[in-house]
Amino acid sequence: MARANSTGLRRDLELLEVLASPEARRRDGLGVVRVAALAGRETTQVSRALATLCDAGLVDRDEETRAYRLGWRLYTLAAQTLEAHLDAVAKPFLLQVCDQVQETTHLCVLRGLDVVTVATQSQPHAFRVMWEGIPVAAPSTSAGRVLISEWPTEQVREIFTSERLSAGEGRCALTTTEQLLDELAAIRSRGYATVDEEFDVGLVGCSAPVRDARGRIVAAINIGAPKARLGSRLDAAGMLTAHYAGKMSEVLAQDG
Amino acid sequence: MARANSTGLRRDLELLEVLASPEARRRDGLGVVRVAALAGRETTQVSRALATLCDAGLVDRDEETRAYRLGWRLYTLAAQTLEAHLDAVAKPFLLQVCDQVQETTHLCVLRGLDVVTVATQSQPHAFRVMWEGIPVAAPSTSAGRVLISEWPTEQVREIFTSERLSAGEGRCALTTTEQLLDELAAIRSRGYATVDEEFDVGLVGCSAPVRDARGRIVAAINIGAPKARLGSRLDAAGMLTAHYAGKMSEVLAQDG
Repeated sequence: MARANSTGLRRDLELLEVLASPEARRRDGLGVVRVAALAGRETTQVSRALATLCDAGLVDRDEETRAYRLGWRLYTLAAQTLEAHLDAVAKPFLLQVCDQVQETTHLCVLRGLDVVTVATQSQPHAFRVMWEGIPVAAPSTSAGRVLISEWPTEQVREIFTSERLSAGEGRCALTTTEQLLDELAAIRSRGYATVDEEFDVGLVGCSAPVRDARGRIVAAINIGAPKARLGSRLDAAGMLTAHYAGKMSEVLAQDG
Repeated sequence: MARANSTGLRRDLELLEVLASPEARRRDGLGVVRVAALAGRETTQVSRALATLCDAGLVDRDEETRAYRLGWRLYTLAAQTLEAHLDAVAKPFLLQVCDQVQETTHLCVLRGLDVVTVATQSQPHAFRVMWEGIPVAAPSTSAGRVLISEWPTEQVREIFTSERLSAGEGRCALTTTEQLLDELAAIRSRGYATVDEEFDVGLVGCSAPVRDARGRIVAAINIGAPKARLGSRLDAAGMLTAHYAGKMSEVLAQDG
């Protein structure tokens, strides 16, 4: 019973993922039959769960089209997440970095072993939050390396075994645990990280750590750009991200 | 069983509300024992549900303090809501209204019979999203009246009976259905709504309708201000909200 309950919750929460799918987005919501089909569940069960999710505001139903979509309560709950706070604090700093480097600037966080981008500044005077939340394995990006740069050595060894690294992202230049540990040490001493076509062909990136009131690394300010444009000034850009990440950390220090 | 499942889901979703409470916010998360106490449930049950919510990313657990708080996945799901889209489109228009009137400007939507504020522009050059999501009964505010201004007469009569109106908000000047219907007609012909100390003593407000690609009223641009400051130019402010609400509607028309 207890186990059934937890499994039931997990399956019902999957309905939110269905409503967050590109298809739901493209079609401005999905009917109950399609939601059930995508979830691989019975329509009557799904209908009941959607009604409960509607009552809680996590799902909305369009009165005209009868289509279900993600609900307004998600929006107000999201405002109270740590990510929303980091995003709000980061805004002016991302704007300045983007303005000075004239390249897209991100705020990234580590969730599990993945890097997630929570905010993007793509051009001056037009702040745009992407929230895309697409996870990327940490060791293959400068932001990910920054975010794990102060992990204890034994934790890095345990999780990022050489087998795992070499089996992972195709272009990641770090294929052994020792290479990763050396790189993390270099990042700690330099104060920022750079990658050169490791995440993707033709792309370079740099990142620097943002710390909370307790001094823990909670986010990274990141620039990602075509190598042709940013390659020759990648270290200068890295130093700039470190400068503004430090300023953002000063603001977060006042939270404590 | 089906009923138990739906009830279980409802109770598990209440845990999100507990984690959205002022106490959880103030203390940067809550331990499982406190969450269970606030939800009035057994700790072991709540512990299992929180673990499932964590797996789904809707809840995060701080590794150091073991406290639960609202999770990052809420943040990325919220980005796909209609409210996030309205907020993004509204930003430049709210900024211009606030800049010209020098008073706090909101974007409001109707959810059920309540008005919910999804974005707030409080001073030029410092955009701040409040997302407070505190619901207010529609007939007592200018935004609410705008949002129901094109409802069919029979629907207004059915829902906002004179008994209900006079039993509702203390200061609302509209206490009969006929008064409300007259006011809604006036709003339709004028293009904006105003209230004078109806929502609260010393406060005035004005609002105008924002329409989606199908021409339906989906939001209201609202100004709320002390009567001493805005009272003498309330109609001018109303016309300004109508102007920018119209411009925002033009942008939304391109969605269709």
